[in-house]
Amino acid sequence: MRGNVIVGQSGGPTAVINSSLVGVFKTAVDRGADKVYGMLNGIQGLLEERYVDLSEHICSELDIELLKRTPSAFLGSCRFKLPEIKDDTKIYDRIFEILDGLHIEYFFYIGGNDSMDTIKKLTDYSLLNGSHIKFMGVPKTIDNDLDVTDHTPGYGSAAKYIGSITKEVIRDGLVYDRQSVSILEIMGRNAGWLTGAAALAKCEDCEGPDMIFLPEIPFDVESFLKKISELHKTKKSIVVAVSEGIRLADGRYVNELASDGPDFVDAFGHKELTGTARYLAGRISSELGSKARAIEFSTLQRCASHIVSRVDITEAFQVGGAAVKAAFEGETGKMIILKRISDDPYICVTDTYDVHKIANVEKKVPREWITPSGDNVMPRFINYIKPLIQAELTPIMVDGLPRHLTLNDLLKKA
Amino acid sequence: MRGNVIVGQSGGPTAVINSSLVGVFKTAVDRGADKVYGMLNGIQGLLEERYVDLSEHICSELDIELLKRTPSAFLGSCRFKLPEIKDDTKIYDRIFEILDGLHIEYFFYIGGNDSMDTIKKLTDYSLLNGSHIKFMGVPKTIDNDLDVTDHTPGYGSAAKYIGSITKEVIRDGLVYDRQSVSILEIMGRNAGWLTGAAALAKCEDCEGPDMIFLPEIPFDVESFLKKISELHKTKKSIVVAVSEGIRLADGRYVNELASDGPDFVDAFGHKELTGTARYLAGRISSELGSKARAIEFSTLQRCASHIVSRVDITEAFQVGGAAVKAAFEGETGKMIILKRISDDPYICVTDTYDVHKIANVEKKVPREWITPSGDNVMPRFINYIKPLIQAELTPIMVDGLPRHLTLNDLLKKA
Repeated sequence: MRGNVIVGQSGGPTAVINSSLVGVFKTAVDRGADKVYGMLNGIQGLLEERYVDLSEHICSELDIELLKRTPSAFLGSCRFKLPEIKDDTKIYDRIFEILDGLHIEYFFYIGGNDSMDTIKKLTDYSLLNGSHIKFMGVPKTIDNDLDVTDHTPGYGSAAKYIGSITKEVIRDGLVYDRQSVSILEIMGRNAGWLTGAAALAKCEDCEGPDMIFLPEIPFDVESFLKKISELHKTKKSIVVAVSEGIRLADGRYVNELASDGPDFVDAFGHKELTGTARYLAGRISSELGSKARAIEFSTLQRCASHIVSRVDITEAFQVGGAAVKAAFEGETGKMIILKRISDDPYICVTDTYDVHKIANVEKKVPREWITPSGDNVMPRFINYIKPLIQAELTPIMVDGLPRHLTLNDLLKKA
Repeated sequence: MRGNVIVGQSGGPTAVINSSLVGVFKTAVDRGADKVYGMLNGIQGLLEERYVDLSEHICSELDIELLKRTPSAFLGSCRFKLPEIKDDTKIYDRIFEILDGLHIEYFFYIGGNDSMDTIKKLTDYSLLNGSHIKFMGVPKTIDNDLDVTDHTPGYGSAAKYIGSITKEVIRDGLVYDRQSVSILEIMGRNAGWLTGAAALAKCEDCEGPDMIFLPEIPFDVESFLKKISELHKTKKSIVVAVSEGIRLADGRYVNELASDGPDFVDAFGHKELTGTARYLAGRISSELGSKARAIEFSTLQRCASHIVSRVDITEAFQVGGAAVKAAFEGETGKMIILKRISDDPYICVTDTYDVHKIANVEKKVPREWITPSGDNVMPRFINYIKPLIQAELTPIMVDGLPRHLTLNDLLKKA
């Protein structure tokens, strides 16, 4: 007997985070797990003893296929940071009490940087207290900012979505014979991985964005306006991609310059960053007189399941499966990483890596992957992303719309 | 010999406007037209003698298939309103001189309300001056606000896109166990056809938006806030769809209430309407304390070719073909309309209708298709849209992204 497994999802979702859940679930069942529990709303829900027995409810191949194509975290997510062990052992005692009550042997947590911090702390506590439970991190984040791993599941699909709609918006911008500027606002607080994906739009049938600004490079509003005005001398329709997180040399976010700049701070103390494109579009219309439009790609970047990368959704499944395999073989305190063997043909394998060396480190776009002028990305960046957006997983369309799986449906059927 | 044909595109594009272009082109060629010209940037480009001989350049089945899947107006568009004939005959003389120079016998214009006004005026002038040229309007608009026709090609695909991403955004909103409100801002200045399509998200696997506000019903901010606060008593994640064009009882647009409300006016004198959702989200966060997010669906509503309705793209082709057939049979001054024979099975046929009775009339959502409380749509509305979003036309994916056809590619090949 293998004992019981529990799996949770944490942090912002991706379009393929449920494929990792399927990877954990299916591999655990196939390898002899007794029960596979799902925590509802991650560690926060677990603390309130909210969980579901997935092995009792997920029965059909169709459920599995729908789940892979369902956006948002199927089990619900949380943004909950565990305290340092030395500051509060009570909460840890409580978590282990609940886990022991469920006879859990293996604990999987699908998430990004903040979630790997949870795996790290739970592992540390288990080692300090002689618990037998194995803890494994399964990487996900559209932001692609996890360290060590070549890339993160979720990124490829977000990049494919961004590349596709950037192409469509560029085409749309060409429709009138007049000067216009579209500013695309793309997610990414400190790392420009997502914003750089707008460059994918550049291909045989599309010129791609005229400029791309990543948060890795300090942004100068005046020189930006000068560049727009220069570009307008040779072309009418200009499309620029900016990260929501671009900052001035003095460290202020560009969106803070707006009079209606937001003061909202999220649960992790991060400032809300929306409004960057709107601010720049406003400056362009008022100072250059061009029609300027801000287009925020918004949450669709993380939930557009209707267009996902098959490479990404397959890898998302694989990292889930690899986590189970490693834990069942006795590993703990590790995160699954992806190691790229070659770009073309694209070959990528999984490995395990000490979560202590990963948690809370943000991976940024290397300076040499950005053009010297800082307003676009280098071919090296495109070569890196290209394999990750290949092929599709067709949505299951019912009555004209993509069908998803819901937890309520699953519970009702049982 | 049939003589020559010219076709143009005008107004805002749709995801399927090029399918109508293909419908005109292919039917004209099949029925013996000598040359099929395309005006570049509509009537405005024609006045500058900018056009291209499509019959010389579109040669392959692949071109046709790519063109159907290409967003934005392939020939370029314009927002150009012809003067009243009595005010300026010179511009009309010039247009007919150019048309006669090209030996044009048939003139097709794919567009919405403002474009049908062009067809009306050109027909009137041709009748006044004994011209033999036949003028036909081919309907398109995502807004679905053309009169007489059951619906307008372009609407079904926009509705399918809105329904699909509304489902995804609703799922995304459920991810955290906390109070949140997402306000979806959907296009539609005076008519709520597009905003109502958010209701499509309501199906077996999705509750649909909690409220939907169309521009047909005066909007009251205070009662809206009260409803949100009531809803929060029973559910945490609230999703509301609002039309960009909702107005207060006194006629002011809601987005004018924002301190940064835009003063921008477009070429037809329409005010820019973006900012409605942002304003409402701001009021919710500051007065109710919920996390509130504005999501503008933006231009993707008209250019998301990566997810189109096959019914829509087929009908877009059909109206183009029907216009050619009618003109070749001697009709002029007409627009093609769609007549629905039955909802289920869905049967819809084409007919011709006097453009004088259509141009400049805006069709709104009937009051009885909106709930008595004015904050949602009735099942009748859903039954109306459902047939229009059925089935898909798979994008032709190349290297991970949807492939389009460009005019430059076409010209290069010749």
